[in-house]
This record gives sequence, C-alpha cells and structure tokens, in this order.
Amino acid sequence: MAIKRRKISVIGAGFTGATTAMMVAQKELGDVVLVDIPQMDGPTKGKALDMLESTPVLGVDSRIIGSSDYESTRDSDVVVITAGIARKPGMSRDDLVSTNAKIMKAVTREVVKYSPECYIIVLTNPADAMTYTVYKESGFEKNRVIGQSGVLDTARFRTFIAEELSLSVEDITGFVLGGHGDDMVPLIRYSFAGGVPLTKLISEQRLEEIVERTRKGGGEIVGLLGNGSAYYAPAASLTQMVEAILKDKKRVIPTIAYLEGEYGYEDIYLGVPTILGGDGIEKVIELDLLEDEKEALDKSVESVRTVMSALPK
Amino acid sequence: MAIKRRKISVIGAGFTGATTAMMVAQKELGDVVLVDIPQMDGPTKGKALDMLESTPVLGVDSRIIGSSDYESTRDSDVVVITAGIARKPGMSRDDLVSTNAKIMKAVTREVVKYSPECYIIVLTNPADAMTYTVYKESGFEKNRVIGQSGVLDTARFRTFIAEELSLSVEDITGFVLGGHGDDMVPLIRYSFAGGVPLTKLISEQRLEEIVERTRKGGGEIVGLLGNGSAYYAPAASLTQMVEAILKDKKRVIPTIAYLEGEYGYEDIYLGVPTILGGDGIEKVIELDLLEDEKEALDKSVESVRTVMSALPK
Amino acid sequence: MAIKRRKISVIGAGFTGATTAMMVAQKELGDVVLVDIPQMDGPTKGKALDMLESTPVLGVDSRIIGSSDYESTRDSDVVVITAGIARKPGMSRDDLVSTNAKIMKAVTREVVKYSPECYIIVLTNPADAMTYTVYKESGFEKNRVIGQSGVLDTARFRTFIAEELSLSVEDITGFVLGGHGDDMVPLIRYSFAGGVPLTKLISEQRLEEIVERTRKGGGEIVGLLGNGSAYYAPAASLTQMVEAILKDKKRVIPTIAYLEGEYGYEDIYLGVPTILGGDGIEKVIELDLLEDEKEALDKSVESVRTVMSALPK
Amino acid sequence: MAIKRRKISVIGAGFTGATTAMMVAQKELGDVVLVDIPQMDGPTKGKALDMLESTPVLGVDSRIIGSSDYESTRDSDVVVITAGIARKPGMSRDDLVSTNAKIMKAVTREVVKYSPECYIIVLTNPADAMTYTVYKESGFEKNRVIGQSGVLDTARFRTFIAEELSLSVEDITGFVLGGHGDDMVPLIRYSFAGGVPLTKLISEQRLEEIVERTRKGGGEIVGLLGNGSAYYAPAASLTQMVEAILKDKKRVIPTIAYLEGEYGYEDIYLGVPTILGGDGIEKVIELDLLEDEKEALDKSVESVRTVMSALPK
Repeated sequence: MAIKRRKISVIGAGFTGATTAMMVAQKELGDVVLVDIPQMDGPTKGKALDMLESTPVLGVDSRIIGSSDYESTRDSDVVVITAGIARKPGMSRDDLVSTNAKIMKAVTREVVKYSPECYIIVLTNPADAMTYTVYKESGFEKNRVIGQSGVLDTARFRTFIAEELSLSVEDITGFVLGGHGDDMVPLIRYSFAGGVPLTKLISEQRLEEIVERTRKGGGEIVGLLGNGSAYYAPAASLTQMVEAILKDKKRVIPTIAYLEGEYGYEDIYLGVPTILGGDGIEKVIELDLLEDEKEALDKSVESVRTVMSALPK
Repeated sequence: MAIKRRKISVIGAGFTGATTAMMVAQKELGDVVLVDIPQMDGPTKGKALDMLESTPVLGVDSRIIGSSDYESTRDSDVVVITAGIARKPGMSRDDLVSTNAKIMKAVTREVVKYSPECYIIVLTNPADAMTYTVYKESGFEKNRVIGQSGVLDTARFRTFIAEELSLSVEDITGFVLGGHGDDMVPLIRYSFAGGVPLTKLISEQRLEEIVERTRKGGGEIVGLLGNGSAYYAPAASLTQMVEAILKDKKRVIPTIAYLEGEYGYEDIYLGVPTILGGDGIEKVIELDLLEDEKEALDKSVESVRTVMSALPK
Repeated sequence: MAIKRRKISVIGAGFTGATTAMMVAQKELGDVVLVDIPQMDGPTKGKALDMLESTPVLGVDSRIIGSSDYESTRDSDVVVITAGIARKPGMSRDDLVSTNAKIMKAVTREVVKYSPECYIIVLTNPADAMTYTVYKESGFEKNRVIGQSGVLDTARFRTFIAEELSLSVEDITGFVLGGHGDDMVPLIRYSFAGGVPLTKLISEQRLEEIVERTRKGGGEIVGLLGNGSAYYAPAASLTQMVEAILKDKKRVIPTIAYLEGEYGYEDIYLGVPTILGGDGIEKVIELDLLEDEKEALDKSVESVRTVMSALPK
Repeated sequence: MAIKRRKISVIGAGFTGATTAMMVAQKELGDVVLVDIPQMDGPTKGKALDMLESTPVLGVDSRIIGSSDYESTRDSDVVVITAGIARKPGMSRDDLVSTNAKIMKAVTREVVKYSPECYIIVLTNPADAMTYTVYKESGFEKNRVIGQSGVLDTARFRTFIAEELSLSVEDITGFVLGGHGDDMVPLIRYSFAGGVPLTKLISEQRLEEIVERTRKGGGEIVGLLGNGSAYYAPAASLTQMVEAILKDKKRVIPTIAYLEGEYGYEDIYLGVPTILGGDGIEKVIELDLLEDEKEALDKSVESVRTVMSALPK
C-alpha cells in the first residue's frame, strides 16, 4: 500500500489558524486543509493559495487548500480547532462561553463525521471549557482530545527569562499548571536555565515580576496591538503539539488534559504536564505539590469550574 | 573580536513585513528589527513581541524587536523595504507612484543614515520604479539595491505547474523577465520539470493558461481575500533573497536589477536573472532572446518607463 | 489507532550504510534499524548506539538500533540495501557480480519475510544488475524495487558545475540516463544553471571535461582515499530517495527502474528519469532522444546486459 | 563590504574530524576546511570532495576542502582540533599525554599563525590537559580556547534516560561537572525530564546504573566497535559548540573552561557549566555544591592535575 502523507486540518482561518497552517506546512508535516465558514470561503481559499504559492520557495511539498466544506477534511490525522469568537467589549464572559461552546459543538460534529480516527487539539478560549466541550461532543477517548495553553504560557515565560539573563531560549525551561492566564500556577522550582534553578540566577522579586508578566502575557499583546490578539506564538505552540503527535515524539509538554482523579480532580480538563505522542496524551504526569501550589491549583480548578458552569447543557 | 549575529531590518510592519520578519527569524538568519511609523508603534511592538515569544518553541535564537525609531536599525546587514500604501479604489496609478516614491525617499534616508553599509531589498509596488527611487536616494552602488518580483512570479508559476503535473515543487523551475504581473515576460523554454522542458509535458494551450494565471497571480489572491493582498509567498520570496545575501549563496535568482546596457537598456531597474550573493547582485546574466521575447521585453520596459515618468523629480 | 513513526532499515553497516542511517535519523524521517551479518554484530550495534547518543544534541527523536537479526527490521516502510563486497584487486567482474548477487538474494529473502509491504532501494554495485536481482528474488511489483545511481551521478555533476561557475549548488540541475560511471549517458541539453542552459555558460570542451570527471567520479574518490570508496554523497543520495518515498514527494529523480518497453527496452533495470513518491517509482518519464543519445543509451544497455549475463541463474 | 561566509577549520581528518566537517556543512554554518598531515593528504582531500559532492543533494552551500597545508585555514572563525593519537595497547597514559601534547603544540602554532582571531575548540584526549596545552601555546585569551567533554557526556546520559522513560530526547536535560569519563561528576539533582526531577521518575539505584553507564559510555562504544572509538555523538557535540559560537547563541553548555578561582581552583581547564556565545566562553556559571559533590569535584581536579603533570614543560 502506497505511503500517504499525513493530513492536518485547521478549523478557523483567522490569524492563529492561518499561521498554524503555514507553520505546519513549513515543517512539511503533511498536507493541510484550512477551513472556515462559508461566508469566509473566499478569504480562506485566498490565504491557503497564498501559502501554497510559498512552498516552491520554502522547498516543501505540502498541499495546502482552503475550504468551507468539511468534506475536505476527510481522513485527517490531526485536527486543530482555532474557530470561535473573541470577547468583545461589553460582552459577558458567560456569553463568550456559550457562543464558543455552540461553535465547538458544531465544528466537532463535522470533524468527527469525516475523521473519526483523528486527534483533536483545541485552542479556542476559554480553552479548558472548550476542550471539555469538544471532548463530550466528540465521543472520543480522552487521550484524543487535547487543549493548548501551557506550551504558550511557558514559551512566554522562557522568552522573558532568556531576555533577563541574555541566554539562549533553547536552554530555558518553564513549568506551569492549571488554567491559562490569571489562573496559571507557575512552578518556579521546576524551571531552569541550562539545568540551573532560576532561583539561583534571578532574585525572588524579579522572578515574581516575570511570572506576573507571563500571566498577563496575552493581555500585553492585546494592549500593544490595539486590535486583535497574539497569533505567532500560539500558532508555534499548536504546531509543536501537532508535530509531537505526528512524529510520535513523546514530548513532555504541558497540555490541557482530561483528569480522572489525577491531582485529586475528576471530570475536568486542566493544564497539567503530559506525555504527548502518537496516541495523543499518552500519560498525565503527577507531581507532588507543595501546600501553596496545591492551593493555587485548587483555585485554578474552581475558576475553570465556574466557566464550565456557563456551558450550555 | 567577538562574532556577532547578522542583523536584518524590515521596514513596514504590515502583513508582508511582519511575515518576512517571522520567516527570517525562523531560519535563525540573525536578529530582526521590525519598523513602522510612530502611529503604529504599539502594533509593531506587539507583533514583534508575539514573534519573539514563539522563539523558545521554534528553538531559534533571534532577538526580534518592533520599533518606530530607525535608531534601532543601526548597523543592519540587510534592510527589506515593504513600506508603502496599496492602491485604493479611485486612486490613479500616478498618485500611487508619487505617494510611494515619497515614502521610499523618506525611508531610504533613515536606512542609509544608520546602516550605510547595508544591502537593501525593495518589495513596495510598483517595484521597478520604487527600487529605482531607493537606489537614487541611497547613493549606494547598484549591486546593493535590489528589487523583488521574479522570485514571487516564478514561485506562483512553479506552484501551478507542480499542481498540473502532480510533481514536487522542488523539481519545477520557472523563468521570467521584465516587469511584475501583466508586464511579466515568461521564458517557457527555460522552464523545466526535473530538467524536462515543460513543453514536452504540457500542451501549449494549457501552458498559456498557466502563464496567464501567473500574470494575474496577485489579482487572484486579492480577489479571493476581498480585502488586502498576498503576503505569505511574497514574504517567503524576500526571505530567500535575504538568505542568499547573508549566506553568500550566489543563487541564480530573478531580481529587479539596475541595468547599464545589459539587454540593451540603460538607467532602469528591471526584472532579469541575476546572481545574488554576499555582495548583493553580483552579476546580471544576459541571455540571447528570441525576437518575440525581445519585443515583449521592450514592451515591459516601456511600461516601466511610463511608471517611472510619474516619479517625483 | 495511534500514529506510528515510519521505520527504515539499512542493510549493510559499512561506511555508506552507517552514514545513510545517520542522515535518515538527522532528518527525523523515522526509526532506523542498521543491519549487518552476525560476525559484525558488535560494530553494528556500536555504530548505532553512537548515532543514538547524538540524537539529544541533534534534537531528533529517532530510535536507532543495530542488529544482525532481520527480525528487528519487521514492518519496515523502506529498506535500503548497501550490503555486498567491493571489487578487490585481482577479482574478475564476474566474480563480483556473482558474489554480490548471492548476497542480494539472501538479504532480499530476509527483508521480504519481515516487511512484505516495504519499498526497497538498492545501492550495491553493479547497481543495475543488483536491483534486477532483488526485484526477481522479492517477487515485488516493479515500482517497489528501486536502484540508486543517477542521484549520485548528477550530484557530482552539479558540484563540478557549481564550482566552475561559482554558483549555488541549489540552482544547478543535471540529467543522466543509462548505467553508472563509464556507461553514464549525460544529457547536457537538459542540464541548467538557474534555468540557463549550461552550453551558454561553459565552453563545449570544458563541459566535456566535466562530464568525463563525473563519469570517473567514483574512481576519483577511490584514488584519493587510497583505501575504500565514496560514502557521504552516496548516503545523501539514498536519504533523498528515502525521503521522497516517505513524504510522498513525487520528486523527478533519476533512478534505476524496471523497463517494460520504455525507451524500447524490455526486462532490464536501467537509469532513467522517474517520479519517486509514496508508491515508489510512480512513473518512468520517457524523453525523445537524439540519435547519438539513443546510440549511447543502447551501448549502456548492452553493457548492463553483459553484466546481467554473469548473474547466477 | 561584501558579506562573507563564516569559515570553520577542522584539524584531524579521522572519523570524528570528518564527521564534524560533514555536520557543520549540513547546517550550512559556513565553508569548511578539513586538515590532516601531509601523509594523509589524499584521503583528506578524498573525504572532503565526497562531502562536497553531497551538498547539491543536501541543498547547502558550503565549500568543503581537504588540505594538508594550514595556509588553507587562513582567517577561520572557529577551529576545531580533533588531531592526536588514540591510546594503544601497551602505551602508558603518560606517553599518550606527552605525544598528544606535542601534536597540540604543533597544530596550535599553525592555527594561530593563520587565524589569530579565531576561537578554538579542543576534542583531543585527555581533553582537559590538551585544552590547557592549546591555551598556553596559543597565547589566546582564555575565553577563546574551549574544550569539549560535557556536551557528549550529557548527550549519553540524556539518551539513556530517554530510553529508560520512553520520552523525547528533547525534553531530557543532564548536568555534569569535572573530567570526562571516570572522573565525571554528574549532578543528578540538576537533571530533568520536562522539568521534572529525575529522582521522581527513576529509582535511585537505576539512576546510579545509568550514571555508571554514562561514565563508561566511551568504553561501551569502544568495546562494541572492537576497533576504534565513538565519533557520531562527539561530532554532533562539537558541531553544537561551533554553532553556539557562530550564531552567538549564548547557550548554557558544559564545556572545559579555564578557571581562575571559580569553584576554588586556579590555572586549570575543567568541565563546568558555561555560557557559550559569539565571544567563546562568555561566562563560567558557579553553583553551590553539596559537600559530596565538592569532594567528587576535588577528586576529579586531582586526577586532571595528575594528567597535567605528564605534560611536557
């Protein structure tokens, strides 16, 4: 049987979705389908064609197509969901949750219909609740539905630390638990520069400032852009997760995973360290937490549950 | 003396400029400065920071900063100019030329002030006339001011041929002379699939359709997007040119080069095959043209001269 | 079903085999099994372990193992055969052919036993006859058994042309037909620098010298090394072929393919331009040949048939 | 002034030297000169030519030449020294030290003569004493003479841990101090899998076995090969160091650095964590050591000093 290219579909052709499609193609991970709603059919096709026209220069063989028909996603290996609306001024968080949950359900039904064997990565905010929604709607095993937040959070943290110390970003590691943004629980004691604990290299106060900047990292970009939010680093994070699965790399990566008792929680999608490989989330890594870490995580869980309570039944 | 990273500045933080900055960083070609006007200072810094936050995930050490102060571009090795306005409905071509020429002059003065030794690559449309303007304003040697159009045109042509034949984009080569778009003079007899002349693989009529599609390639994307124009393939093309210079690759690449008698033309920037390396355009390659090719090129030159006549004196 | 890494087995752990294994791993194309005879079990395992120990530094996840047991090759996607002896002083060519053919048969039986669905690439000399032998012994469809010679021959040709013209190797294309080495039939008119015919850039006499150097390219390395033969460029060539198959790239690549009437020949493996993709040799590209080219190819075929006549029945 | 490619010279064209040259070229870090003694001129040129002939297939523009004339190394940015003999049966360690020290001195004089501004990386064993010898002979500042051992030691350690835990090699970090091999002082408490301390994932006893295997890692390969020693992982390690310097990456990497009081030692080259960037060793990172770690390091230092006492005055 002929060897076939892997196939990756990206749902949502906004900045993050489009940039993810481009980055996945740049790594020649497989063929890429970029999908958006029928009203956006032209722009979606336009972006995909523009990307495709870059492939001769990039030297990669990835067929990239844009579509508003889920039929095009048939037999995808990995599907990345970036669809959804951003919170607008005056919109309540519950409205955001409710609207995006509806979108997740509709998208998931289509995805599952055409790719019943795929792995799904969810970016849409609020990511914990949206990943939960996709999981429930898909009927998939828990390991095949994965949310993104920790790769991006640690990427920001690593960037700030690398700048602070004038070191290679390759040698900085970070570690977070819990929800995205304000609810993030950074584990500084598991964060290093070339294996050296950060606490030996940076004052406690300065570290606290950097953690705080990381927490507000999304907002910092929003504030600067004035209009819109971050998409380069989110897209790079999604691409790393796609690669980990398609190459069965078994990366130790913080993802939003479904918990069934791990860390003491049940029936929730939460940011935890996981092993990400050819079978999706192959394992949740459980760590002993210090008392204050556990407390912070509890608070983060509470916050996720509050958001979840706004999910349509 | 310590070894220093290369430095690349990208002027204009719109889609093409920003995507170019990201692609240059992805290839770890050096540190990147993204520059736009003071009114866009926030978004420029926001995009740059977002890109920087992707570097830990990408595993590249490229400092990327956004700025509205040309001081930040000091001692750049290569400067890419993507600044300028797009033609708006109702705007005459002469107005476009005149406005962008003014922008080129202002940008060039700043670029030259801080990086008197740099190489400049110009993307702004109409690229032939804009490259000419930058050349004159810079006072640089002709080899150090280079326009982009042929890499993108051939990239589109190669994409369409690869699709037509279901072949790797890596094995398709294309060849164009003259102006961008409608004035493009494709040399099909110098275009191949794995060394095999395209005329042996595709009917003459189908080839003509593909050439026509290539000519209208920019318009096709504009039409699909509805709002805005291509930026992925243009950015990839610019990045390839930056790499050719910084790695002194001596690529045989179609660029917009200053002619002093080559092909029988004087004092004009025109799309021709060149050798692009560590000293910019190291050579213009002159080919014998068939009569109809020469005629088409004459027409293309005329068209460029008409545009140039609208340049402010 | 979990996504699995591709698997590549390399038979023969000499310099070429080992270097191929390393290069395949460097590109993270999949897991690699390096196989040699039981007497070489230690060195084979040693080389593989040494390679494996480089993967953390290279940042690739490829499990590389050495083995003398074909069981380890089970379910390979692609198998590369580099096993065989080199011609020693005093050894007749027929003895070489006969010995290596026996090795091919034994290797093929083991390969087929454990990987009945794989694609096989043969490097062992004389490559045309050895690929034929593997094909017959395997019982595989012709597209799944592929010989290497043209990628290496054109690589050498491109190197010499790039040096001659001081141009990027990326922009030089070459084209050969027929047997390896002395029997090589170069098609200069299908060889280009950035699409420009080489005949416009290099004198006929100098081109002839470069062709002659290419023909003797293997011998030039043997002469310099004093002991042993080339392995870096052969390994890179094999790796490109492995990649073309595993990524279904549909490259236009000269390979040793089985002919059933193409170019007027029957039941022979011969160097011809082919499309190499996920189903192996997906197509043989037939070109119109000039009279002298056809004559040279006839002579090359005769030479291959002479070698084949020494194959054990 | 035209932009020039970086230039890297590799002294010693044995397996490690040649493989390093190939890997440096594969990363397109610059042009490469491979140097060996006049008696090996042919093989050195043969290997370099073979590598050069792989560049069209690899798609990299790196001129690779072989030479026995140091004139060819003129104006190198980085010089890697792999020259020297291996310890033969019956040879005393003092004889090895004395012979290799003489080679180091001769090589260094030539290197310094042609590239007075270069950075030197030393691999030759015993690496601590040989780096010291090169430093003294060169008259260079201490940051410009760097020894390799820790990258390789941690690469082995990371490989074994990744295997043990079935995890990506990308997420395992290791940390060693002191001499190479038996004198290695591993700091397990600074070694992690995705930031998680190894002690939480692997039993103490199993960790101790893995450390012991790492210590004996070179010997394991020697034992398997039967003849010769490791070269793939050493070459990858050297290449990473070359890249860190040429791209000014400021990696946190264990290198053999000259100490002037750090960790309480004077006038010795010793394996310590350092920052490696465009100015060579830009900093030695000092860590608080536990008592038993300090004791082990003292012992390692003693051992290095014993070797140094065999250096010719």
